Amino acid sequence: MRCLYHFPLSPASRKVRLVLAEKRLPFELALERPWERRVEYLELNPAGTVPTLVEESGVVVPDSTVICEYLEEAYPETPLLGRSIGERVETRRLVAWFDGRFDTEVTQALLGQKHMRRMAGRGGPDAAVMRAGYVAIRHHLDYIGWLAETRRWLAGGSLSLADFAAAAHLSSLDYVGDVDWSVSPPAKEWYARMKSRPCFRAVLADRVAGIVPPQHYDDLDF
Amino acid sequence: MRCLYHFPLSPASRKVRLVLAEKRLPFELALERPWERRVEYLELNPAGTVPTLVEESGVVVPDSTVICEYLEEAYPETPLLGRSIGERVETRRLVAWFDGRFDTEVTQALLGQKHMRRMAGRGGPDAAVMRAGYVAIRHHLDYIGWLAETRRWLAGGSLSLADFAAAAHLSSLDYVGDVDWSVSPPAKEWYARMKSRPCFRAVLADRVAGIVPPQHYDDLDF
Repeated sequence: MRCLYHFPLSPASRKVRLVLAEKRLPFELALERPWERRVEYLELNPAGTVPTLVEESGVVVPDSTVICEYLEEAYPETPLLGRSIGERVETRRLVAWFDGRFDTEVTQALLGQKHMRRMAGRGGPDAAVMRAGYVAIRHHLDYIGWLAETRRWLAGGSLSLADFAAAAHLSSLDYVGDVDWSVSPPAKEWYARMKSRPCFRAVLADRVAGIVPPQHYDDLDF
Repeated sequence: MRCLYHFPLSPASRKVRLVLAEKRLPFELALERPWERRVEYLELNPAGTVPTLVEESGVVVPDSTVICEYLEEAYPETPLLGRSIGERVETRRLVAWFDGRFDTEVTQALLGQKHMRRMAGRGGPDAAVMRAGYVAIRHHLDYIGWLAETRRWLAGGSLSLADFAAAAHLSSLDYVGDVDWSVSPPAKEWYARMKSRPCFRAVLADRVAGIVPPQHYDDLDF
């Protein structure tokens, strides 16, 4: 069976879970705490990041961006990058935006400071970093809302990796109660559409020990 | 004419220059200092990072990873990702490694601290970060040497984006005198092969005001 080494609150892991489910590729999950730097895991993925995909054939694919490119090439039946070159540029641009800038400015600043640092035993949060994160998420929600208002899906007319990248970050942040959805009604409406997809079910059902998500977290009509 | 907005010491910019030249795609360069956050540039690339490629057709492609994927799809004549799915996974894994882990542990810690911070007016270097960078670069040179000894090129039998990603980082670091090539003779031999390629000429000829590279920098038999 195909196996994904993941960590539940990692947006990169969630993105790949959503993509695998959207492509209807069955897989099992193996929990990996990347900060433990397990030797067996570093042999699979020297970078030590989650997720890593191990195919039944033995092919090992680390890094969520590399995994998504791989899945597009190996299982093109449900295309998630777009068909035209312009669509593919825009999809990849937005994935890089969410996994780069959004991740640094928002996810690391909020989820990273509040929870990941503690779990990894690296001490408490830095309040100044978190304040900057709360400012940044408002701008990012506005941007997502603007994309959702002007296009059917974030990268254009078709559901794409850009939607899964954004939804993965937001779902992790929503789990810890850090998303104020009132900031952008169109972003909220887009996220409600994403949450209602069957591929989202397993992700929304996950629970992390010691952290209770807000009531609306898995409510499809939040 | 195709135009690449770049900054000379940025490894991401160098990687794309090398790839464009290797694919024999003519282009002109436009100097962009990303820390100035020029409004016109942010309209091209909201993330504000270098490089950004603007095609004669008007297509705008930001982000070096997105540009390289785009160039592979738009100009497949000189393939740099590998042909089999396994080769493509390994090439992309190593590109993510060099542009992710190597960039954080080495490039940001050395070039970033010593030069980019000063240029961007963000103050002087943090000595502890730099010390960690000098330790990390030795491990990374060993890893590159091990890859170069066990394979013809870094990702396998063919020259690939992995070689250009690694060579781009090392060439920027070499410009500021931060690469001790004696650490790994096979890494040095691989880099000498890279430097001798015609695509490298323009990059090696570049000079940055106020920083004189070491004598060996553009010497092909260093």
